[in-house]
Amino acid sequence: MPIKVTCIAPVNIAIIKYWGKRDDDLILPINDSISVTLSTDHLRTKTTITAGPEITKNVLYLNGVEESFDNPRILRCFQEVRKKAKASGKCPKPELLEWNIHVESENNFPTAAGLASSAAGYACFVYTLATLYGIESDELSGIARMGSGSACRSLHSGYVQWARGERADGLDSLAIQLAPASAWPDMHVLILVVSDRKKATASTHGMATSVKTSDLLKHRASVCVPERVKLVQKAITEKDFDTFGRIAMKDSNQFHAICLDTYPPCFYMNDVSRSVIRMVDQINKLAGENAPVRVAYSFDAGPNACLFLMEKDVAEVSAIVRRVFPFNGCTAEEYYKGIPNDEPAIEAIPTTVLESFVAEEPNQLRYIIHTKVGDGPKRVD
Amino acid sequence: MPIKVTCIAPVNIAIIKYWGKRDDDLILPINDSISVTLSTDHLRTKTTITAGPEITKNVLYLNGVEESFDNPRILRCFQEVRKKAKASGKCPKPELLEWNIHVESENNFPTAAGLASSAAGYACFVYTLATLYGIESDELSGIARMGSGSACRSLHSGYVQWARGERADGLDSLAIQLAPASAWPDMHVLILVVSDRKKATASTHGMATSVKTSDLLKHRASVCVPERVKLVQKAITEKDFDTFGRIAMKDSNQFHAICLDTYPPCFYMNDVSRSVIRMVDQINKLAGENAPVRVAYSFDAGPNACLFLMEKDVAEVSAIVRRVFPFNGCTAEEYYKGIPNDEPAIEAIPTTVLESFVAEEPNQLRYIIHTKVGDGPKRVD
Repeated sequence: MPIKVTCIAPVNIAIIKYWGKRDDDLILPINDSISVTLSTDHLRTKTTITAGPEITKNVLYLNGVEESFDNPRILRCFQEVRKKAKASGKCPKPELLEWNIHVESENNFPTAAGLASSAAGYACFVYTLATLYGIESDELSGIARMGSGSACRSLHSGYVQWARGERADGLDSLAIQLAPASAWPDMHVLILVVSDRKKATASTHGMATSVKTSDLLKHRASVCVPERVKLVQKAITEKDFDTFGRIAMKDSNQFHAICLDTYPPCFYMNDVSRSVIRMVDQINKLAGENAPVRVAYSFDAGPNACLFLMEKDVAEVSAIVRRVFPFNGCTAEEYYKGIPNDEPAIEAIPTTVLESFVAEEPNQLRYIIHTKVGDGPKRVD
Repeated sequence: MPIKVTCIAPVNIAIIKYWGKRDDDLILPINDSISVTLSTDHLRTKTTITAGPEITKNVLYLNGVEESFDNPRILRCFQEVRKKAKASGKCPKPELLEWNIHVESENNFPTAAGLASSAAGYACFVYTLATLYGIESDELSGIARMGSGSACRSLHSGYVQWARGERADGLDSLAIQLAPASAWPDMHVLILVVSDRKKATASTHGMATSVKTSDLLKHRASVCVPERVKLVQKAITEKDFDTFGRIAMKDSNQFHAICLDTYPPCFYMNDVSRSVIRMVDQINKLAGENAPVRVAYSFDAGPNACLFLMEKDVAEVSAIVRRVFPFNGCTAEEYYKGIPNDEPAIEAIPTTVLESFVAEEPNQLRYIIHTKVGDGPKRVD
C-alpha cells in the first residue's frame, strides 16, 4: 500500500542578497542574507511524494516533465533527509525508508518567469520528504540549502535570515525566522514580470565567476553586508519602512554592481528593469527630494522587479505602475494577478499625479502579481 | 589690430576611470586615471580666440551657439591662464592681457554623441588662450583640470596619466605623458556610437552622488585603482595588449558597477552597450576560453563603446561589428567613418567565423568611427 504526502512551499525574495559561496559542495555562503517569504496564495511549489514497495525506481517529474533523479543535489537532499529520519527513530513505518519514491512537483507560476523556482522547489522537496518520514527539524533548512542555497529561507514564514555560519561542515549555516508575516501585516508586494527575450547567465555560474574575479565582492561580504543586516533586522522589528526599503534598494543595486564588476560581467537587469528603478525613484520623490521611502525595488538574478510597499500606498503605486507600463492584448485580470485592485481607491488618485509619469511602450511587462508576505511550507492533503 | 589664434585639441578615453572628486571646487580626483588620446584626424575640438581693444565684452560660441561667459569654470580657466601669462612675463604684447576675447569653439563630432566633448573643449580653450598669450607650461593641464577634470589629460598625446596628487591646493594634480602615440603604433580604436533615446544622469551630478552614497567607491579608489594603474603602466611600456585590454574592460565594468552602487543608481550603459560587451567576449573566445584578449571595450558616462585592438585584428573585428550591428538607411561610408576599411582583408575572413555571431536588429548603432591613438593640442592657423 503506497503512502502519499502532498505539501506546498513558498517563494522568497532576498532583501539582503546572497551572492558568493565559500564552499561549493555544501553551498555555504560568504555572507548572511535576509529574505521575505511570499504568500503561497499566489506563488507556490506543490510537491506530491509517493513511496511504496512496488515503485521500482526513484522518479522525479517537474511541471509534468520527467527529470533525472541522479542530479547530485536532489540525491543529496534525499539522502540527508533519510539519514535524519533514521537517526530520529520517528519514522512511523521503518520500511518506508527503504522504499523508492515517486515525486511530482509543480509551480503555479511559469518557471521561465525567473521567480526563484529552485528555492521553492528544493524547500518543498525536503519538507514533503520529511513529512512523509514523520520528522520535523530545525535543521531541514540546512538540508534544503544543499539543494539550492536560497531554498533554506523558504522553510520559514515571514522575515527570514540565513546565517552564513562559521563551521566548515556547515552545520551552523541555517535559516531562522526574524519575524512572522503577521508582525508587519501592512507589507504588500508587487511583482513586475518583465518581458525578456534574452537568456541571462545561470546564477550558479555567475556567482562562482564573481567570487573568482570581482575585486569588490570581498569588501561587500565582509564590510557592507554585516552593517546592512543589522539595519534591516532593526527595521523589521520597528516596522521602519523607510530604512527597510532604502537598504533593500541599495542592496539590490550593490548585488547587480558586483555582477557588473565580474569578469566577464554578468547582467541580470535590462532596460525595462532600469525604467522600473526610475519610476520607483520618481514615486519616492513625489512628496519631496528627501521624503521617506514609500516603495522599494529588489531584483534577483533576472530582470523582474519585486516592489515592497505599505498597504496605504498600494492603490496609488499600482495605478502608477499601470500608467508607466501599459498593456494590450490581454484582459486587466490577466495583466494584474493576485490580490485584486481596490478600484474605488484607484479612481480617487488625482490625475495630476498620474500625468507626471511618462508611459513606456506597451507590453514591456508580461504581467503583475500583487501578493503579501506569507507562510512557510505546509501539508495540504 | 585684433590678434587671432586657432588651435585644435583631442578627445581622450580613460582606461582607468576617473570617478569621484575629493575637492569639487578645484576638481581634484580621489584616484589616478590613465587615458588614451585619440587622433585629431577624426575627433577634435577647434577653437579660435580673437583678442582686441575693440572687443567690448568676452563672448563664447560653442558650435555656433552663444553660451554664457559667466560660467564659473570658463572664468576660472580664463583667469588662471592670464595669471600665469602675467607671471611669466613672456606675453609678446602686454596690453593683450587686458583685452576682452571672442571665443569660437566647435567639435567635428555631434556633442550629443556623448563623446567627452567637455574634455576636448576645455583643453582646447586653455591651450588656445595660452598660445595667444605666448606661454607654454607643464602646468596648463592643472588649469584645464579646473574646467573639466578629464580635460587635463587632453593636453598630451598618446598614453596619459592624471595623478590625483596629495596637495590640498591641487598643484600636484597634473597630467603627464606615459608614452607617445608612436610608442605603440599598432593600437587602433573603434568607437561604436549607440542610438539612444534616453538622457542619462549628468556625470558631474552622478559622480557627486557616488562619493556620497556608494559603499564600494572608497575601496575602489584606495585599493583597486592603485594596483590597476601599475598594471596598465607596465602593459603600455611592454606593449602587452592582453593585460592592457583586460584591465581596461575590468575598470570600465567597475566604474559602471560603482554607478549602480550609487543611490539612487545612475545608469550609463544600456541594452545595446551590453550586446557590445557580449560580442567582444565572444570575439576574445574565438581562439579558446582563455585566449589572450584581442579586443577590449571601455564605456564612459554614456552608452557608446570604445573598442581597442591591434592593427592585425582590425579587419576581422570591424567585419564582426558590422555583422552583429547591421544598418540601413545610410551609406557604408556614413556608417563607418574615419580610417577606411581594408576591404580585401575583410573579404578574406572565413564566413564560418562571421556566421558564429548573431545579428542584432538593424540601426542599434548610429555609426562607427575608426581611429587611432594621436597627438595633443596644436596650433593650426
